[in-house]
Amino acid sequence: MPAINKQITLAARPSGLPKLSDFKLVESPVPEPGPGEFLIRTLYVSVDPYMRGRMNDVKSYAPPVQIGEVMGAGAVGKVAASQNPQFQPGDVVEGFFGWQQFAVSNGAGVRKIDPSLAPVSTALGVLGMPGLTAYFGLLEIGKPRPGETVVVSGAAGAVGSLVGQIAKIQGCRVVGIAGGDQKVAWLRDELGFDAAFNYKTTTNYAAKLAELCPKGVDVYFDNVGGTITDAVFPLINTGARIAVCGQIAQYNADKPETGPRLLWHLIVKQARAEGFLVFQFASRYAEGLKQMAAWLKAGKLKYREQFVDGIENAPRAFIGMLQGENTGKQLVRVSAE
Amino acid sequence: MPAINKQITLAARPSGLPKLSDFKLVESPVPEPGPGEFLIRTLYVSVDPYMRGRMNDVKSYAPPVQIGEVMGAGAVGKVAASQNPQFQPGDVVEGFFGWQQFAVSNGAGVRKIDPSLAPVSTALGVLGMPGLTAYFGLLEIGKPRPGETVVVSGAAGAVGSLVGQIAKIQGCRVVGIAGGDQKVAWLRDELGFDAAFNYKTTTNYAAKLAELCPKGVDVYFDNVGGTITDAVFPLINTGARIAVCGQIAQYNADKPETGPRLLWHLIVKQARAEGFLVFQFASRYAEGLKQMAAWLKAGKLKYREQFVDGIENAPRAFIGMLQGENTGKQLVRVSAE
Repeated sequence: MPAINKQITLAARPSGLPKLSDFKLVESPVPEPGPGEFLIRTLYVSVDPYMRGRMNDVKSYAPPVQIGEVMGAGAVGKVAASQNPQFQPGDVVEGFFGWQQFAVSNGAGVRKIDPSLAPVSTALGVLGMPGLTAYFGLLEIGKPRPGETVVVSGAAGAVGSLVGQIAKIQGCRVVGIAGGDQKVAWLRDELGFDAAFNYKTTTNYAAKLAELCPKGVDVYFDNVGGTITDAVFPLINTGARIAVCGQIAQYNADKPETGPRLLWHLIVKQARAEGFLVFQFASRYAEGLKQMAAWLKAGKLKYREQFVDGIENAPRAFIGMLQGENTGKQLVRVSAE
Repeated sequence: MPAINKQITLAARPSGLPKLSDFKLVESPVPEPGPGEFLIRTLYVSVDPYMRGRMNDVKSYAPPVQIGEVMGAGAVGKVAASQNPQFQPGDVVEGFFGWQQFAVSNGAGVRKIDPSLAPVSTALGVLGMPGLTAYFGLLEIGKPRPGETVVVSGAAGAVGSLVGQIAKIQGCRVVGIAGGDQKVAWLRDELGFDAAFNYKTTTNYAAKLAELCPKGVDVYFDNVGGTITDAVFPLINTGARIAVCGQIAQYNADKPETGPRLLWHLIVKQARAEGFLVFQFASRYAEGLKQMAAWLKAGKLKYREQFVDGIENAPRAFIGMLQGENTGKQLVRVSAE
């Protein structure tokens, strides 16, 4: 086992889109687990949009990452040494281990992964936080009914691609918005979306949405905000539900962005916009994972993972993800399984 | 009985704040009720913010008023002649009779008013549509719990003044936002609001709200939108409910107004913004009116009515209401009871 733990820390608070120089690769000794603790060798670490918010020094639902601190992140790893009887060397686990090669844990917030169920990397995607976000966000906040039209922004991302497929399972018409022709083709041809369009090559979002949603929009699952969301609001139907999951279009904004005032649409359409965090469904994670695993096994859910190799490349993967370079779930492969 | 029916019609579609010249006083013969119909002599007609929306030629939840058509409006009147056995001459009724001295109805959407319960004008206020809007909007959309902080904009208006009092009955801390020192004094000294401020003389809404809502905002009942609402959103608590009732700040806008993007706050706070129209609670009006009447009788609800005399002054009253000249419910007294 190496004696060195490569870690990525936050070197500076980004202004706008993060730069590689906002991060720093540091080396520290591999930590020793104390009584009740165990050592994890990281296999995969996650890069997710929410991390951008934690890089700002503002009060939010979770404390910000401090300068010099290892970037927090979900990760999948293998127990390498243990002084905790519940976790044995060789166990594959998922937890908030951060962008580093090794981590020590006492087991809080850590779950064991069954490698026979699916590739263990899926514990950070379809069978992890993004999958649960899609499952509870769509079903509990969006509440789609058969025959309704569901629009998903960020549709080719880790969450959006699952939202659309779950909506199809519910019997909905599903329209995806994504940033690339290949992404659009993937949504339509492989994931079964009824329609999708590339916002980067579409000039009039409103006209395109009206064309693809002839019966209006009953559920809007919003991952992006900004001008895409501006175009969806006027098309909502009476009683529509807008599940506000992310606003990635403005995560890099240095000052509050402006846009058309949207609340009036909610009155006219007796509609609801509701923000959520997956954590609010923590007591029901087991239910969500069970259903997602069953759909996956039945071939009703497809997923794609995209890997970069080496912990030193986590910042690059993260910055690329913020720019929409990924299709499906972006991961960093830290070491071989 | 006079042979002439004075009516106010829409003469032109307003641009921005309506002008008196957008309306026209016309005279027509008093109509004759046919079989199953009855004639109503109007006592009071209502002026309400929603009417501004109906003056625009755009699709909304109700069709627009046409040029040359009598302005639609709720009204209280007395049955003057009847060929409908369910409505007898002398009965006091409330219905959508419009800005005119006489109207004919077949009884659809008309309710009889008990003059012994309260002044019959209250059928257009505390015991009518504004009262029901406050009751259902606050309790069913806002869902306040004892001890929570409720903020109301347009707090001295027909709806807002009742929302705050109902919130007090529910055991909440109530903060009102209104446009005038006398309004603020009325809210605090007579209606029992815990705090209120005059937005016309307050430069920093955010700082004032933070001062008056030390525990944040759990329920925001929004009648106005615009910069006031912009200041409330950042103060909402986790799980907050925003009941979007009106957006009067932008009803006179010729083009869509812009403002800071607000949806992000809903995610961070797992909060909900929900628009509503009182009509969606139509099946429960009797329940709402019964409770409002009981609170009124018990002295738990106070209300104020402000009158102008003469149907010819309805446009002036309406324009004044849009500019916030009224405290409580603005009415037009058309004829003596």
